[in-house]
Amino acid sequence: MTQTASSQATSGTELAAAEKPDVVAAVHATADRARTASRRMARANRAWKDKALLEIADALVAKRDLVLRANRKDVEAGRENGTSKALLDRLSLNPQRIDSLANALRDLAALPDPVGTVMRGQTLPNGLRLRQIHVPMGVVAAIYEARPNVTVDIAGLALKSGNAVILRGGSAAAQTNVALIGIIRDALDQAGLPADAVQSVDEYGRDGANALMQARGRIDVLIPRGGRELIQTVVNNAKVPVIETGEGNVHIYLDESADTQMAIDILLNAKTQRPSVCNTVETLLLHSGAEASREVLRSLAEAGVRLHTDQRATQLLPEGAAAAPATDEDWAQEYMDLDLAVGVVDSMDDALEHIRRWTTGHTEAIITNNLANAERFIAEIDSAAVIVNASTRFTDGGELGLGAEVGISTQKMHARGPMGLRELTTTKWIVQGDGQVRG
Amino acid sequence: MTQTASSQATSGTELAAAEKPDVVAAVHATADRARTASRRMARANRAWKDKALLEIADALVAKRDLVLRANRKDVEAGRENGTSKALLDRLSLNPQRIDSLANALRDLAALPDPVGTVMRGQTLPNGLRLRQIHVPMGVVAAIYEARPNVTVDIAGLALKSGNAVILRGGSAAAQTNVALIGIIRDALDQAGLPADAVQSVDEYGRDGANALMQARGRIDVLIPRGGRELIQTVVNNAKVPVIETGEGNVHIYLDESADTQMAIDILLNAKTQRPSVCNTVETLLLHSGAEASREVLRSLAEAGVRLHTDQRATQLLPEGAAAAPATDEDWAQEYMDLDLAVGVVDSMDDALEHIRRWTTGHTEAIITNNLANAERFIAEIDSAAVIVNASTRFTDGGELGLGAEVGISTQKMHARGPMGLRELTTTKWIVQGDGQVRG
Repeated sequence: MTQTASSQATSGTELAAAEKPDVVAAVHATADRARTASRRMARANRAWKDKALLEIADALVAKRDLVLRANRKDVEAGRENGTSKALLDRLSLNPQRIDSLANALRDLAALPDPVGTVMRGQTLPNGLRLRQIHVPMGVVAAIYEARPNVTVDIAGLALKSGNAVILRGGSAAAQTNVALIGIIRDALDQAGLPADAVQSVDEYGRDGANALMQARGRIDVLIPRGGRELIQTVVNNAKVPVIETGEGNVHIYLDESADTQMAIDILLNAKTQRPSVCNTVETLLLHSGAEASREVLRSLAEAGVRLHTDQRATQLLPEGAAAAPATDEDWAQEYMDLDLAVGVVDSMDDALEHIRRWTTGHTEAIITNNLANAERFIAEIDSAAVIVNASTRFTDGGELGLGAEVGISTQKMHARGPMGLRELTTTKWIVQGDGQVRG
Repeated sequence: MTQTASSQATSGTELAAAEKPDVVAAVHATADRARTASRRMARANRAWKDKALLEIADALVAKRDLVLRANRKDVEAGRENGTSKALLDRLSLNPQRIDSLANALRDLAALPDPVGTVMRGQTLPNGLRLRQIHVPMGVVAAIYEARPNVTVDIAGLALKSGNAVILRGGSAAAQTNVALIGIIRDALDQAGLPADAVQSVDEYGRDGANALMQARGRIDVLIPRGGRELIQTVVNNAKVPVIETGEGNVHIYLDESADTQMAIDILLNAKTQRPSVCNTVETLLLHSGAEASREVLRSLAEAGVRLHTDQRATQLLPEGAAAAPATDEDWAQEYMDLDLAVGVVDSMDDALEHIRRWTTGHTEAIITNNLANAERFIAEIDSAAVIVNASTRFTDGGELGLGAEVGISTQKMHARGPMGLRELTTTKWIVQGDGQVRG
């Protein structure tokens, strides 16, 4: 699950700066070490990789105090710099959070290995034996900010899928990341795998992040994780392949035939269970003939949701309920908070039109009992996830059975929706013959 | 199969120019029409799409003279501009070439439709029904140069996979492309599909190509096809997702245990059958203990192959055979001609090391009778295609059973190796429930 930081310690736009030759050389050297390590990682079988993940998990627990001491320094420095409370919360580790990071690695060890699985294969008429198999990407890089849990998450996912990884975790979490990466590298070494499979370029600051983005041919895929500004900066400046994760301006369309109780349950869950994440609903579109509408709005208002309503939706509000008038800014906005834009539409056409105009292509849901409308919604909505009669909160790797996720891809190339281990692999065609030539 | 033009009518570096607001607006309007058309294309079932492909094929044959007249103007203009003979040959159509374009469309109609195929699916413990299905990308763009056959190829592939496509075919083929695209659009209209599923931005020149590259959010994937310079310019300047196709610095490693006759057959096929394409071999590495070496070099020399040999390979040449000394430029070069760099290595380690240093990640082959060496080569070579005991010329969509191909991807994201219809799709997660919410 990708959380978007509304305020950021490292501003995205500041990432793009002039190249510094010495930093570029250092980052290239890091990438070259990663490439060498990636060759050993690609040949490591699942047993080795899982052993390493369990070693890292144990080491994190054993060296918890070291991590917490480092983290305290980052948090104190952040407080002195006037870092926002939300960001400080994301930055802070405690014993329970470290335990859950270790447990996530143990869960990862229990997942199947995507490497070596055969995607398709056949024997051709000329006798050539053909297989397309999943192989590691090679060198994966991640740019993120102020969230030390991402350090462990991404390192674990990259290792399990047979890759080497280069991390740029941002200055706000610098001390914590040094401690975490040190522990991970020691554990890799203990497990007989190359420590250079996990490296950081944090010491080179923003110039290091820039050099990573430009290192075409050295970095096989770059994954930005963080706020909108960070992701846009990476997407706009990177010369290496990027997978864009994140933004979810998620819609729920309440069809005329929607069941009232189901609608209330889904809306409350989709808006209030964890409003700060990307799969939370941001706009509710009510069919003008839907009976459920008034009850749904009443339940949302009672749950403390701040409603931003268009003129007709305002008419449906419970007596005395306050609502702000919805503007184009509301339709466009990913609140990631207890806010919800609400509009009334006269038809499914209008609902589809609205969604097409404002969606970020993450997740949209319909609540309906009309089969034709459900089918049409599935066919015509062009988003990573299309949901019928369930909460939008299910767009999540864990919930959808992928086990663990790198993020939610909102682009169409390579990975779409929750990215799991398989999405950190590429494929290789293997052709075996007995002297065949082309006629 | 991607052919690389060594001289180009449109230089790649000239593509990157300043933005012109009126051209940007026009290209955006084109992309918006493509988006609208893509929605109808995405819902068109296979029968409709195949009907359209057959209509286009028939129309190309019926209006052959119109196309040939337009093509003659382009060829004459090219001749006056001093365009190279190779490029003029690529640019020229004749009745047979038009027939084969039409037949390629008929073959495409016979291929299965990737749209709607289920990639994976399950019912989750909470009862949610989950499917990840293939859906069209949406709006595909292609930038290429002076090859009118690509116009028909890419349009056909995009339509069959349910996409709309925007073409930029370059000024050298402008008249021909106008004729071809007109025929295609009329046939689409006849078949009840939107004409705007195939559009061109050629009228906006290089500024149009630039605007395409920048149209993030409007273009789902951009495919450059052409020479190295064109592809590099697109890769370096595009803000939309790009699939890099092309360059093949292809290696064959002749292992100690290689069978002499098999080695001769494979090398002759891989080098001489069609030297101008990307899957032709460019470097031969001979194990110092391989008995086949002298005979292989003799056969290649007799076939008219110009050998560029390192010092030890020079010793293996037949009496009186001329060879140029191989330099780093030879190891790096994709000759795409009857030239071959030849080096001697003392071990498989040295061969792997050489390949890692110089490969473009397209195709590498080993000729061997040693099982362990074959397995090691498969495991350690990190290229789109790894071939054992067969010609490198098999790295081709048609040969590998994909039916038709967009190009050979040498990147690791989304598509690797021959890109067929499936690679012009993305996926969508469909989640169907009965009111499920997240706990």
